[in-house]
Amino acid sequence: MDEFSFIRSIQPEYYQQSSLIKGIDDDAAVFRPTDRDIVTAVDTMVEGVHFSRETMEPAHIGYRVLAANLSDLAAMGSTPLFYMVSITIPPNWQQEELEVLYDGMNQLASRYKMDLIGGDTVSGRELSLTVTVIGSVPKEKARYRSVAKPGDILFVTGTLGDSRAGLEWLLNDGKGATEDITYLIERHREPTPRVEFAEQLEELERVALNDVSDGIANEANEIAEASDVDLHMDLESLPFSKQIRISYPDQYEEWGLSGGEDFELLGTVSEAEWISVKEAAERTGIPVTKIGQVNVKQGSSGVVKIYKKQQWEVLKPSGYTHLTGEGE
Amino acid sequence: MDEFSFIRSIQPEYYQQSSLIKGIDDDAAVFRPTDRDIVTAVDTMVEGVHFSRETMEPAHIGYRVLAANLSDLAAMGSTPLFYMVSITIPPNWQQEELEVLYDGMNQLASRYKMDLIGGDTVSGRELSLTVTVIGSVPKEKARYRSVAKPGDILFVTGTLGDSRAGLEWLLNDGKGATEDITYLIERHREPTPRVEFAEQLEELERVALNDVSDGIANEANEIAEASDVDLHMDLESLPFSKQIRISYPDQYEEWGLSGGEDFELLGTVSEAEWISVKEAAERTGIPVTKIGQVNVKQGSSGVVKIYKKQQWEVLKPSGYTHLTGEGE
Repeated sequence: MDEFSFIRSIQPEYYQQSSLIKGIDDDAAVFRPTDRDIVTAVDTMVEGVHFSRETMEPAHIGYRVLAANLSDLAAMGSTPLFYMVSITIPPNWQQEELEVLYDGMNQLASRYKMDLIGGDTVSGRELSLTVTVIGSVPKEKARYRSVAKPGDILFVTGTLGDSRAGLEWLLNDGKGATEDITYLIERHREPTPRVEFAEQLEELERVALNDVSDGIANEANEIAEASDVDLHMDLESLPFSKQIRISYPDQYEEWGLSGGEDFELLGTVSEAEWISVKEAAERTGIPVTKIGQVNVKQGSSGVVKIYKKQQWEVLKPSGYTHLTGEGE
Repeated sequence: MDEFSFIRSIQPEYYQQSSLIKGIDDDAAVFRPTDRDIVTAVDTMVEGVHFSRETMEPAHIGYRVLAANLSDLAAMGSTPLFYMVSITIPPNWQQEELEVLYDGMNQLASRYKMDLIGGDTVSGRELSLTVTVIGSVPKEKARYRSVAKPGDILFVTGTLGDSRAGLEWLLNDGKGATEDITYLIERHREPTPRVEFAEQLEELERVALNDVSDGIANEANEIAEASDVDLHMDLESLPFSKQIRISYPDQYEEWGLSGGEDFELLGTVSEAEWISVKEAAERTGIPVTKIGQVNVKQGSSGVVKIYKKQQWEVLKPSGYTHLTGEGE
């Protein structure tokens, strides 16, 4: 593979962000910020750990690593602007496949007019993608997980567990997909980060947001801990797609709580501003569901409780403590 | 290895940049830019490709990957502000070693009051580090490689080839280091990016800058191509340390032209502003040497010529076209 030819093939032909001054043809990129705060995050995905070619085409891999980053930006209430991609290429990947992988990223990036402004291309033994994203948010409007208050409504966008269900089918079944299964597979391969919805919350005075990348049990615990509150949720109220209910009736509840990367947003907002959240959902066509509420913490630190079969249980962050790819 | 304990161990206890609003305890970091342009770059280093534990201690590895990025910021004339680190950890690295690696980065970062504001920690088969840096530069003062003009003086900071010489000794000799060798090894393991020097050029109207990460033959060709000019340099005028002349008399010229990562700055400036470059060098204690000049291009695209043994030769970018880690 010819490095120069590959790098040429992934370079953008034009840039869309007016704030960009210098793109990828110098030692670094330069942009002129407007009167907003800058938001940035980085995420790495490694073949065999975070994705497999058995369950994803190259285009999906590209799409998904950028989606994970955009989901982080959405969880801060910010608008995407730029991204940089560092790729480690092993000998068994061909240039054409890598170009398709970049196309997958570009497909998602162009939806938000994001510009690819930098990166690195190195060789190694395993394919690895590290994406850095940069966005902006109106001053004082970044959305932190630490601002939940007792009395808040706990809500989540979209439906839960679909991505995990799609993965399950790809790993273990793999033949004769129904229409329902196709839906679940798409939610696994090409999940939609909730960028527009988060942007539409701009007028709200206060909203806590966290993106769902490890199941809501984990994300809810992060909010409870950061905000020093207890969260109470009702299992019956969790939103599930009819597709997952039909295809995986015995597993969907578990997957909704601790399953894979749905890239939905989990949030809390005051009763007074809940109407604005519902309006944002309507304007963007992204469903939002009230799933519980925020309470004063009872113990020494915030915990999450879930009402299940007529009784309250403590919901732990559920297991993702081994080294498999936790973001900041 | 316990991921949470590791992540806790690398989290900064405090932040130094007043523009930082949110560090590493949310989905993304947030900062409020001042009235300057923002500069950003990313660089990846993979064990066995870009470094080896046979020639570097973990602290050097950390130091060096950040140094490579800071060198990119310096080559844009910008002041470092923040960095994010994505690390892929294979089973054979212990937590204590990784903490030392981060200490190596922190050693360099703290010199510039840079804050670690994000990152990712994933598992994989080979150690890989991707560092994203963010800096700022006064408006219209980012330094591009595309602004060289005929009549300019061509200059370079520091001395050339020392890093490559240090690596040579570590790879092939490895015993009984003299004082000279120790100097060369330090230049390999802990090169100093020329941040202060680049900052001191702020008042200049125009200066082209490129950092020397693949030998000046490569970087000079980048300037020639981007600026559409010819560069003429004199081999006799290239700056070499007495240490490299003494220890590697037969190789130093070659290494200076196409050797490893010295992280010096190669630049061009008008005759009128050359005095300001020399003053910047004096103020920062970083030597600067005139090594040639910029001429009108003679062919269809800019080339680099070098005067060697009473005749002119064309200096090609010298070989680094295979896939080993080219930055943007």
